[in-house]
Amino acid sequence: MISSMDNLKIKSLLKLKQAKYRKQEQKFIVEGTHLVSEARMAGVLIEAYSIEEKEGYIQVSEGIMKKICNTDSVVKDLGLCKMLTKSELSDKVLILDGVQDPGNMGSLMRSACAFGFDTIFIGTGSVDIYNDKVIRSSQGAIFKLNFLFGNICDFLKTLNHKVYGTNVVNGISLTEVKKEKRVAIILGNEGNGISKEVQDLGLENIYIPMKNMESLNVAVAGSIILYKFSI
Amino acid sequence: MISSMDNLKIKSLLKLKQAKYRKQEQKFIVEGTHLVSEARMAGVLIEAYSIEEKEGYIQVSEGIMKKICNTDSVVKDLGLCKMLTKSELSDKVLILDGVQDPGNMGSLMRSACAFGFDTIFIGTGSVDIYNDKVIRSSQGAIFKLNFLFGNICDFLKTLNHKVYGTNVVNGISLTEVKKEKRVAIILGNEGNGISKEVQDLGLENIYIPMKNMESLNVAVAGSIILYKFSI
Repeated sequence: MISSMDNLKIKSLLKLKQAKYRKQEQKFIVEGTHLVSEARMAGVLIEAYSIEEKEGYIQVSEGIMKKICNTDSVVKDLGLCKMLTKSELSDKVLILDGVQDPGNMGSLMRSACAFGFDTIFIGTGSVDIYNDKVIRSSQGAIFKLNFLFGNICDFLKTLNHKVYGTNVVNGISLTEVKKEKRVAIILGNEGNGISKEVQDLGLENIYIPMKNMESLNVAVAGSIILYKFSI
Repeated sequence: MISSMDNLKIKSLLKLKQAKYRKQEQKFIVEGTHLVSEARMAGVLIEAYSIEEKEGYIQVSEGIMKKICNTDSVVKDLGLCKMLTKSELSDKVLILDGVQDPGNMGSLMRSACAFGFDTIFIGTGSVDIYNDKVIRSSQGAIFKLNFLFGNICDFLKTLNHKVYGTNVVNGISLTEVKKEKRVAIILGNEGNGISKEVQDLGLENIYIPMKNMESLNVAVAGSIILYKFSI
């Protein structure tokens, strides 16, 4: 059983709490028995750690587990995972332009997965998708999606999809939008919406008809639109 | 300018950080210039406080403001508000059975307001709606809705609405649901869904058709259903 913080494996795990090292190592951590088993099924599990002695797990002390994990509740198992990126594109693509809240990012992953948007393009300025709160909110969706990263304007040039931006007022009402075989939906930042650089490409925007409120939560608004393209 | 923590007004404000005192006093705090002005428009503002010297505001030191507010960022203004409850019911009612996450609660308020569910019934076991995180996520919707509180089973007996529960698999698909003039939608807890006590009434459930995921975030799922009944 590992109980020393000086252990090299533990030191590497602790480093992965920082986005910089996750990116450099192309590795990330998942917390909890359920996510470890999802990571295993997805073929991205490198090593599993547990506070219990069991086959296939490296045993660590409770103290070590608490230091690595970020939750207040006790986590029994954690998994060290490798990042996987495939270049293939699904017919439905979700593009995130500066979504910053980890809960929103995780919820959007769940919805994207549930509604067949199997590729998510993460634009510069969005929260790191391998952040522990994102992974927790994603409820395993992170293992079922393909993620691409980079500049949205460059990415849009390569797309053979009908592209829609989203805006709280202007554009086409969601009730009028036609179903498309290949569609890409762009969602913007919680406070500022889609960045000027991307809007300046001359996006066609979708809005959700509503009253008494100026806007919806971005995960909510995005998911309503994804749902609409799934039915 | 008030700069002492012993000031009686400040002591009362600090107490309101606890749900118990908010309930007892029937008062709550909103943070930020925008929410203070929304509270004023809604007629629930009792007093306004600011770190700046300006008319209609009681000036407090920055130190005091930091102690009262819960955000990391600097808040300039805050408002002391009174809780208002009307007994009237809207045609569309949202019922929350143990929604626990403040962000979900706030997002659901925004959606309820946007989609005409102007009455929200808060069942026992839900997060306090006057929690600072809920208020922040609600983006002002908290001032535009009517809230009722109590036991859901008792409340349902008084309703003259078509009542739908929500469930991840069983029931009627959302694509098949008919529009209703008077409808009540029940959403359950993030982890456990609708409580057994309420399910045992023999609810007709709505599910959202999805693939690859077992469930959606409750604010997302709820909002998709509210949207459907608004169009």
